Amino acid sequence: MLTIKEIIQDSDRLFLGKDVPSQYLEDPYVKDIPPIYGVALPQTHEEVVALVQFAKQENLVILARGAGTGVAGSQVPIQGNELIIDVHLMNQIGELDEETLTLTVEPGVLVGDIHDYVEKKGYFYPPDPASKHSSIGGNVATNAGGLRAVKYGTTRDYVREMTVVLPSGEDMTLGSMNIKSSSGYDLKDLFIGSEGTLGITTQIKLKLIPLPRASTSILLAFEDVGKATDGALAILASGADPSGIELFEKEALYYAEQHLGYPLQTQAGEAYLLMTLDGNDSKELEGRAGSVKAATNNLALETHVLSEEEAEKAWALRDAILIGLMAFTQYEMLDEVVPINQFAELVRYTKALQDKHGLGVINFGHSGDGNVHTVLMKGELSEEEWLEKRSHLLDDLYQKVQELGGLPSAEHGIGIVKKKYLEKMTVPVNLYYMRKIKAVFDPDNRLNPGKLF
Amino acid sequence: MLTIKEIIQDSDRLFLGKDVPSQYLEDPYVKDIPPIYGVALPQTHEEVVALVQFAKQENLVILARGAGTGVAGSQVPIQGNELIIDVHLMNQIGELDEETLTLTVEPGVLVGDIHDYVEKKGYFYPPDPASKHSSIGGNVATNAGGLRAVKYGTTRDYVREMTVVLPSGEDMTLGSMNIKSSSGYDLKDLFIGSEGTLGITTQIKLKLIPLPRASTSILLAFEDVGKATDGALAILASGADPSGIELFEKEALYYAEQHLGYPLQTQAGEAYLLMTLDGNDSKELEGRAGSVKAATNNLALETHVLSEEEAEKAWALRDAILIGLMAFTQYEMLDEVVPINQFAELVRYTKALQDKHGLGVINFGHSGDGNVHTVLMKGELSEEEWLEKRSHLLDDLYQKVQELGGLPSAEHGIGIVKKKYLEKMTVPVNLYYMRKIKAVFDPDNRLNPGKLF
Ligand SMILES: Cc1cc2nc3c(=O)[nH]c(=O)nc-3n(C[C@H](O)[C@H](O)[C@H](O)COP(=O)(O)OP(=O)(O)OC[C@H]3O[C@@H](n4cnc5c(N)ncnc54)[C@H](O)[C@@H]3O)c2cc1C
Ligand SMILES: Cc1cc2nc3c(=O)[nH]c(=O)nc-3n(C[C@H](O)[C@H](O)[C@H](O)COP(=O)(O)OP(=O)(O)OC[C@H]3O[C@@H](n4cnc5c(N)ncnc54)[C@H](O)[C@@H]3O)c2cc1C
Repeated sequence: MLTIKEIIQDSDRLFLGKDVPSQYLEDPYVKDIPPIYGVALPQTHEEVVALVQFAKQENLVILARGAGTGVAGSQVPIQGNELIIDVHLMNQIGELDEETLTLTVEPGVLVGDIHDYVEKKGYFYPPDPASKHSSIGGNVATNAGGLRAVKYGTTRDYVREMTVVLPSGEDMTLGSMNIKSSSGYDLKDLFIGSEGTLGITTQIKLKLIPLPRASTSILLAFEDVGKATDGALAILASGADPSGIELFEKEALYYAEQHLGYPLQTQAGEAYLLMTLDGNDSKELEGRAGSVKAATNNLALETHVLSEEEAEKAWALRDAILIGLMAFTQYEMLDEVVPINQFAELVRYTKALQDKHGLGVINFGHSGDGNVHTVLMKGELSEEEWLEKRSHLLDDLYQKVQELGGLPSAEHGIGIVKKKYLEKMTVPVNLYYMRKIKAVFDPDNRLNPGKLF
Repeated sequence: MLTIKEIIQDSDRLFLGKDVPSQYLEDPYVKDIPPIYGVALPQTHEEVVALVQFAKQENLVILARGAGTGVAGSQVPIQGNELIIDVHLMNQIGELDEETLTLTVEPGVLVGDIHDYVEKKGYFYPPDPASKHSSIGGNVATNAGGLRAVKYGTTRDYVREMTVVLPSGEDMTLGSMNIKSSSGYDLKDLFIGSEGTLGITTQIKLKLIPLPRASTSILLAFEDVGKATDGALAILASGADPSGIELFEKEALYYAEQHLGYPLQTQAGEAYLLMTLDGNDSKELEGRAGSVKAATNNLALETHVLSEEEAEKAWALRDAILIGLMAFTQYEMLDEVVPINQFAELVRYTKALQDKHGLGVINFGHSGDGNVHTVLMKGELSEEEWLEKRSHLLDDLYQKVQELGGLPSAEHGIGIVKKKYLEKMTVPVNLYYMRKIKAVFDPDNRLNPGKLF
């Protein structure tokens, strides 16, 4: 058996004990991270296999890590004897096969780089998390969603084939290059969204689609967030087929406007929808924009079909909400989802919680999917007050989400941050079988233990 | 514990031993079906649970059955101590929720009835297996595909939530009414396509979409099947976004023309593509039909954009191929799939096999998915010759499918008919973990044992 220094011979790809860089031991969502065994940065599938075999022999815990942008703590060590396998150097973009419309990538490739690469060649990779600097391996592990899921679905829908290294050191290829299959159990979808608890992904073949020839953005202003959510429902039912419908409150927008230094095109009302239509030509899009207007006629205060330049500015504001907020206060961002017809009720309830618990609450999110990023703001509270109020508010909020038939995470994952709530909100028989499946692939509970459930 | 007659009290819903109707003991694909314990036809979820508990207590094998249209033998008893749970009386269509765009159905509802029901109300359930008289429970169990999978995907993509009864008698709800989730392992997709080996589905919530406002069909004639498959690839790459692209050889069409008594609009060439475009209005469709023509200009002999009446006649011919063939000869229909860029090679190879083995071979199928239904025809051969030649041809064919990166079944399932080939074509580690997962949910191997693997 090789030693770890024989497996990873470059000293700038291996950090043991005290030499582990601090970035691996810090996280805004997780406190008290213990010192760990080490961090290895493999460059090949074979190195990942060897590292997993080494960890097995040494009885270490294994933790896969991509770009480290996760917001649920699932890429963070919590045990103390972790070997972190950081795959971000496995970042080669492989073949773009124009016949099968697939792109082969290593797991460390950033999703923003995938967009740039394929769009230059006339293709489209639809999943679009706001974090363009997250890795595709991390996106697959969390089933990332993003801004275009309404029309195009999530990362899950674009993974044709993936290769994983199991905790046993075996490797397995899941899915295939075939478009359809009824040939045995669907193991691929089990691994997607499993937050690095079943295997480490070392290669992915992504499905691409032709780049839409035309695209247009529409901005709608509403009296309040309830009207805006009703507007989102009406747009969905109109047949206009939006790619995305983002919602944000004026209160949330405020931080982005401060940060970027310019205002949104409209200041009417208290809540906004920003949406896109993709299609074949501008004629077609005009027709579909007409459907949007007709559907929201009685609901919206203002409707603006944006020019390209206006659209760019509006989307930049949407993207800057979190960064803008950061300058003002410490916060916690949630990722709850409810059936689309309960979305308005959920958003209204968050505002009631703001009053009840005396904690700032703002909302933005993917209203076309029923997924809202509720943000709790610490503001001027002391650390103690903040933790106390936050905890009570979260108990109330997730209770409501459960009553509405929702789930704790739409796209960020459970990690350790939402583990308590997943356990509360999931029927015991489902949890029981999830644990049994974990044990099938990871009988020693070596891979990212203590996460998810 | 109840007796089975206490569970199912109506005598016309319970058949034991010699009283089992012959339809349950006959199948075109499976010989030597043994006598079985019995057949029960539950009408409620609770009856299914009680039947499963009864079977457990009596140590019977359980076999779920929907409409019995399966063509892989997976709904057929092979052990001798089966209790068939035939759910076709659980055929109530429940709520069509226009807010969440979902339809709740019992598993015995026929897919054709779902189409009729939702289309009358302006909605669309895209999966469209040619067998309109198959049940939705069977469609989910086989991940049925059909004529519109190119654009819309398969049954898997339209199951929001499903309730299953496990072999233990427990029940479990998989998925949810939420559009997105990163909240634990995806158990739902594991059950979809598992051919009734993991659980019995008793309720399904289907995702609907708005009914496309306009639709048009195009018929293209080609010199030979190779050119036709090239044409299909060109159409896929054109961005025309077809809903389906069906391919058939003139030889296959012949049987349909005989059966229906009228010819196809064109008799040019030796192979045809029949395709549909769905969209918002006829203007848009004209533009996209133009893309189809431009893309196939150098490949097709003739291109016809069909009137509504012509389209109906052409699709009726497509649908009548199998029934037409039946009048002429005994046959075996396959369901292989290869990556789309290998489709032409596969189809050409089937013609070489025809010559090599002296067995009639014709092709039709879903060329937009890389899925061809190769049909082997017995013709005038003796039973013995037929079995012998067929077996050698199948060995060659599946060997080639494997070399091309394909799979034995795109949409019909493995059952027992293709079990040998699935085992040959699947990497041992994948088979190993599939078996382990089977054992998690069905430790006594009670539910449809001996199928799939
Ligand atoms: C500003 C900001 C905006 C965001 N916006 C969105 C959004 O719009 N939509 C959205 O879905 N998410 C969003 N996120 C969340 C985050 O970007 C995603 O969770 C992302 O998918 C994580 O990828 P990563 O490479 O950073 O993974 P990491 O943070 O490194 O890891 C996350 C999880 O994936 C696992 N993992 C990583 N790589 C592998 C691998 N190769 N094999 C197996 N497991 C692996 C880890 O073990 C861990 O469980 C946002 C985050 C930030 C900070
Ligand atoms: C003429 C013809 C054309 C066809 N065309 C197509 C096509 O275009 N596309 C396509 O995909 N298929 C096609 N098929 C195949 C067939 O119709 C499908 O396999 C169908 O999905 C089977 O449904 P069923 O209700 O008949 O199931 P059955 O034949 O009764 O059972 C099939 C499998 O499903 C399981 N099952 C059934 N109900 C349940 C349940 N409630 N819970 C758990 N398991 C269950 C059974 O155990 C069995 O394993 C065609 C078949 C014929 C005869």
